[in-house]
Amino acid sequence: MTSFLSKTSTQLWVVDRQHMQRRSDYLATEEPLEIRLTEPAQTLAITMRTPGADFELTAGFLLSEQVIAHRNDVLRMTHCRDRTVPADQRDNIVTVTLRPGLTPNLTALERHFYTTSACGVCGKTSLDALKIHCGAIAETTATVAATTLQQLPQKLQLAQGIFQATGGLHAAALFDLAGNLLAVQEDVGRHNALDKLLGSALLSGQLPLDRHIVLVSGRASFELLQKCLVARVPIVCAVSAPSSLAVAVAQEFNMTLIGFLRGERFNLYSGRDRVIV
Amino acid sequence: MTSFLSKTSTQLWVVDRQHMQRRSDYLATEEPLEIRLTEPAQTLAITMRTPGADFELTAGFLLSEQVIAHRNDVLRMTHCRDRTVPADQRDNIVTVTLRPGLTPNLTALERHFYTTSACGVCGKTSLDALKIHCGAIAETTATVAATTLQQLPQKLQLAQGIFQATGGLHAAALFDLAGNLLAVQEDVGRHNALDKLLGSALLSGQLPLDRHIVLVSGRASFELLQKCLVARVPIVCAVSAPSSLAVAVAQEFNMTLIGFLRGERFNLYSGRDRVIV
Repeated sequence: MTSFLSKTSTQLWVVDRQHMQRRSDYLATEEPLEIRLTEPAQTLAITMRTPGADFELTAGFLLSEQVIAHRNDVLRMTHCRDRTVPADQRDNIVTVTLRPGLTPNLTALERHFYTTSACGVCGKTSLDALKIHCGAIAETTATVAATTLQQLPQKLQLAQGIFQATGGLHAAALFDLAGNLLAVQEDVGRHNALDKLLGSALLSGQLPLDRHIVLVSGRASFELLQKCLVARVPIVCAVSAPSSLAVAVAQEFNMTLIGFLRGERFNLYSGRDRVIV
Repeated sequence: MTSFLSKTSTQLWVVDRQHMQRRSDYLATEEPLEIRLTEPAQTLAITMRTPGADFELTAGFLLSEQVIAHRNDVLRMTHCRDRTVPADQRDNIVTVTLRPGLTPNLTALERHFYTTSACGVCGKTSLDALKIHCGAIAETTATVAATTLQQLPQKLQLAQGIFQATGGLHAAALFDLAGNLLAVQEDVGRHNALDKLLGSALLSGQLPLDRHIVLVSGRASFELLQKCLVARVPIVCAVSAPSSLAVAVAQEFNMTLIGFLRGERFNLYSGRDRVIV
């Protein structure tokens, strides 16, 4: 059994009631993987993934998309060796050569492939791409009491209807800085739940959300942080763990990122100044 | 506060140790939403979502992709009124008219948009599209004891390294019909974890996986079932809830689908004949 794993070390604050403590912990690594074909020379997809087992991921992706059906359909898979690509990014590109005669219908594939809003081929590049469109969140007066944050999950839970009935939905909630619940949206996809929440704020003319808090029911990924950044949300909380790239976005753009928000305890990964303990 | 919810009723078997009981329960509804522009007339994305708050979802999606920044950027949003589209599918299409002068750079957007392998615009169409490429799983001799299934989550947990350290990874595991763990893969994205698992099986020449069981650590969606179907996995288990469309795929293609597999209890949604109680 082969299992390649990858984790990233980080410094954070653990807040327990009114007590705050510095600690180091591990994050699940999140970085983009670009899947390229050699013939025709073309990028097929960019997916946010945990490095390791990149060839397996690529093969499984091509299988799911019905580009290949058998291992003999793949002649060669390599990490990028292109010397024009910075060395630290080459491991985030897998190049696939299909067997002669196997020509995927790329026109049909075009609309099928999952790609993210990451433009680049590594975490750093993804951040650089974001910077083109988005500035950092300003040092505003948007602050929140730790005790207020600790009450948010319960407020979300009380407001969630269908989750109790099906156990199958992600939720995203919008709060003001006093912890009042303003809106909640649910969906089978966590990106959709957040899109519904932020889209609702846009349609009712509430943007920018620069004095608001967003809470998501699951984990915090690059994409969720990016969506909050575009809507100018300064404080983002997740009930579960953030990824390495979510923390990197928060640090780069001066966002407050809180993870493992459960009961009277949470982890503070970035933007400590906005949290009053 | 507005919150549109959607759930679907289903019949299932609840298995508790050696006891089996028929029951009805609710599933979170999962259906494709197609987002169309009127000018230029083009499909921007198809996303699997829970119906309700479709305009909010569309607005949030366009905001995240930086097509729009303000509510005035949207002139009109309507559900499809095209009479050539079957009536039951019109609610799965949102048509957006942007304000005059706002012309999105569609070439730049092309590779950014998240689209799924669903070809159609409603659940039924997605199933029909799958049928073009995939037949149902055969009535094989692939059966498994309920007691074997009940031990799988613990075996996965013992094998998972990084999850305990970071809490941030999804897992997918492959078992034989006797419940032996053959492989496990982890990733920040649950689709990636399953792609790694199935891709690894492809590369080592193990396909088709027609005498195997797949267990995923989270929920079971349309896409996860579709991936297992392509690899010909007859028995799919999830630690959490399946969506309505995941159950529909399982029923249509004669797959055994198990949800809420925890301790000595699980729900059986489809393919009961393969489970020996």
